[in-house]
Amino acid sequence: MSTPAVTPEPPYFAVIFTSLLEENAEGYEETAERMMELAALQEGFLGIESARDEIGITVSYWRDEASIREWRAQAAHVEARRMGRELWYRTFRVRVSRVEREYGSP
Amino acid sequence: MSTPAVTPEPPYFAVIFTSLLEENAEGYEETAERMMELAALQEGFLGIESARDEIGITVSYWRDEASIREWRAQAAHVEARRMGRELWYRTFRVRVSRVEREYGSP
Repeated sequence: MSTPAVTPEPPYFAVIFTSLLEENAEGYEETAERMMELAALQEGFLGIESARDEIGITVSYWRDEASIREWRAQAAHVEARRMGRELWYRTFRVRVSRVEREYGSP
Repeated sequence: MSTPAVTPEPPYFAVIFTSLLEENAEGYEETAERMMELAALQEGFLGIESARDEIGITVSYWRDEASIREWRAQAAHVEARRMGRELWYRTFRVRVSRVEREYGSP
């Protein structure tokens, strides 16, 4: 995504996903794009931000923990995560956090 | 930073910093590098991850809110943030969040 996400007043949740790709991660980019599109259709989705150079960081924002659980159970997302674990990621971390406050440029 | 951060058992805190740079952000890279080095010297610092392509995302991890406040008050960091607001960032967001759980590849 090309712009910082616009999110509502905290509290809400952020899923911080950090990864290092394998040298040959064929098919990864298309699936990652597709997952960003699908996530945006989920109930409770608030926004997503993603950048990659040496490592990749994707932060998705959610209304509540229930929304995160539902996205985790979404069939195409389950399959994409399996592909990620088996083929694309050399290493990855997922951190589920509760955003307490937010500020920034006007 | 080139690798995902290794953090302790939650709970701990994550500061999610998202930004879009101005076309000409002269001096930004050096200062950003220096701030990553200085942050790592702070009491309560747990790790940092950073990536930039269209947008930049830097996530720093902290033991507690007091550590975040102290880093925010550090003189060189205060000055760097002023430069950021005045010269480098077209837009930025800061989100302070409490990491509740974490998992990932072995």
